[in-house]
Amino acid sequence: MRRIALTVQYDGTDYAGFQRQRQARTIQGELEEALSALLQHQVRITAAGRTDAGVHAMGQVIALQTDNPIPVENLLRAANEALPVSITVAECSEVAEDFHPRYSAEGKLYSYRILNRPLPSPFINRYAWHVREPLDEDAMQEAARTLVGTHDFAAFATAGGAAQSTVREIYRLSVEREGELIETRIGGTGFLYMMVRNIMGTLVAVGRGELTSADVEQILQGRDRAEAPPPAPPQGLCLVRVEY
Amino acid sequence: MRRIALTVQYDGTDYAGFQRQRQARTIQGELEEALSALLQHQVRITAAGRTDAGVHAMGQVIALQTDNPIPVENLLRAANEALPVSITVAECSEVAEDFHPRYSAEGKLYSYRILNRPLPSPFINRYAWHVREPLDEDAMQEAARTLVGTHDFAAFATAGGAAQSTVREIYRLSVEREGELIETRIGGTGFLYMMVRNIMGTLVAVGRGELTSADVEQILQGRDRAEAPPPAPPQGLCLVRVEY
Repeated sequence: MRRIALTVQYDGTDYAGFQRQRQARTIQGELEEALSALLQHQVRITAAGRTDAGVHAMGQVIALQTDNPIPVENLLRAANEALPVSITVAECSEVAEDFHPRYSAEGKLYSYRILNRPLPSPFINRYAWHVREPLDEDAMQEAARTLVGTHDFAAFATAGGAAQSTVREIYRLSVEREGELIETRIGGTGFLYMMVRNIMGTLVAVGRGELTSADVEQILQGRDRAEAPPPAPPQGLCLVRVEY
Repeated sequence: MRRIALTVQYDGTDYAGFQRQRQARTIQGELEEALSALLQHQVRITAAGRTDAGVHAMGQVIALQTDNPIPVENLLRAANEALPVSITVAECSEVAEDFHPRYSAEGKLYSYRILNRPLPSPFINRYAWHVREPLDEDAMQEAARTLVGTHDFAAFATAGGAAQSTVREIYRLSVEREGELIETRIGGTGFLYMMVRNIMGTLVAVGRGELTSADVEQILQGRDRAEAPPPAPPQGLCLVRVEY
């Protein structure tokens, strides 16, 4: 039995998320359908993370088992021919049989993009949260520092996740402006359900001047989701890379 | 009666083109529906050009008549709130009553983008033609020079346009590579039906080494559409700007 890992990129706009669903178009559903046809047996994939509806990926990692002897470079090419334009396989390689996209991961890096100007853009709005009012990115960066490290992130975890503990480590959280775009990069050993979008909702409240860094510290320590602002919308979020 | 001009941007991927159709979703249909609701009367717009299905715009110009006294800045904001994410009004101003988006135009600038690398991209493929084989952009630029000036472009006009003469002037045609992206900019006083995509199909044949500059010159002079390669696909094309 061969174990094969694939790095996958997708525009999540038109999908009901990563995870397979009976009635809806999903990333997992499209991948399994294309790969099953190519490998000529029913393929079940496991992934590094299940992104939500509308969330994108530059470096999602999936793995599968197969007995089919197809060379990985042929699988890469054939998969890209079979998949819709919105999903691309960027890499394909044979891996150790104990490799698991999620359990073998040492960390994940996400980006969250904000278009910060009065006018929307049909080309950027698909991939960014459009915030009309000017945001103070320095205040956002200062508040972000509060969250770096190992903390109980219960205040930023939406109910519905399977995790037992809400303690996680964020080892990187940067906020950078380039003209009208603000890009946040957030790296951590693991993330709770909706954690990045909940954090971004709070950082944007800071950028708007509605909260201070001290408020964010207090929200974190209060461990009460109800005390934090609502989550940022999905389209700004992208799973950039999984670290192994 | 007031005459109002709007500069419109759109992602044409999910539309059956600019022009209103009874059964399909179009840019004109969305704009007229939103503007009619806002201005509280049936609005009919005229446009600088009717882009085809899948073609984008950064600077389409439309005009309308209204008696509604709404300030243009309020119309701009309200239109963007009413329109889908894929269509944005970037500018809105009152213009002279004899202004016509098409007949008043002195020229139009289009861009055509090519993603030139083995792998597709879910983020770029929406806005570029994915060509796997390496293209020689210098050869494309050289062949492009043949087309600059006033010529009979019958070889690059698909039947179906309303134009009586096939003579047009191209005053700019540049081909530039930036890494894996090749961007062509083409400016002219007027364009025949499918002219930019037909020219791009020919320039890519040159980039692949299938045609020489001399062949392109001969195709131009032969004025026979059947002698030129097929058109480039729509998603690489964008109406950048209309000059008045």
